[in-house]
Amino acid sequence: MTDVIDLKSKLAAFHDTWHPRVIGEANGQLLKLAQCEGALEWHSHQAEDEVFLCLEGRLVLELRDREVALEAGQLFVVPRGVEHKPRAEPRASVLLFEPKQTQHLGGAGGAREVAVDDQEWI
Amino acid sequence: MTDVIDLKSKLAAFHDTWHPRVIGEANGQLLKLAQCEGALEWHSHQAEDEVFLCLEGRLVLELRDREVALEAGQLFVVPRGVEHKPRAEPRASVLLFEPKQTQHLGGAGGAREVAVDDQEWI
Repeated sequence: MTDVIDLKSKLAAFHDTWHPRVIGEANGQLLKLAQCEGALEWHSHQAEDEVFLCLEGRLVLELRDREVALEAGQLFVVPRGVEHKPRAEPRASVLLFEPKQTQHLGGAGGAREVAVDDQEWI
Repeated sequence: MTDVIDLKSKLAAFHDTWHPRVIGEANGQLLKLAQCEGALEWHSHQAEDEVFLCLEGRLVLELRDREVALEAGQLFVVPRGVEHKPRAEPRASVLLFEPKQTQHLGGAGGAREVAVDDQEWI
């Protein structure tokens, strides 16, 4: 049985940016938290929609045709296949909800990729 | 393409309790908001885990062997098959994340059931 998950306590448990931690699971989807600062690479997820809920700060999602700005209490669903480049101004904390098999950078690789099997629970 | 979803604005758009509204969809799951006051019926969802994120107030989830209390910024996953009775003390606003086919009261019926096909988007 799961326990109560306190978002603020979980966020206080790690500080590295663009490295999501898993905090829960439901229906084959993972709940993750991420600390964000500066920008991540352009990427997309071919088969997974990605839910971003901004908890603190300001997160901008650059899309190819526009930008979407999220402040605390605002969420956005990036549909599968849509290229996006998250950028924090200057920092943000985000709750993500996405399928277990979602690759952090959509499989593009790079130094900030986190392998699906290496995702850390906190 | 979806738009930014502002939770406070969406919550201000309805006031009836225990009648979730749909605000988004991702990967076959719906994001819903609910206003809660008093208690709902005991029920369970046989095939669906249910994520509760408390946004305002205090939501108690009575389980058969314990109670789980959620305040703003705390979440809990009720696993499939686990009987639960949500109760707000005295009021709460909640974000739910669950599969599209999830029945509000697990199929038990009653005056407060909301048919899956009747779920209202806001």
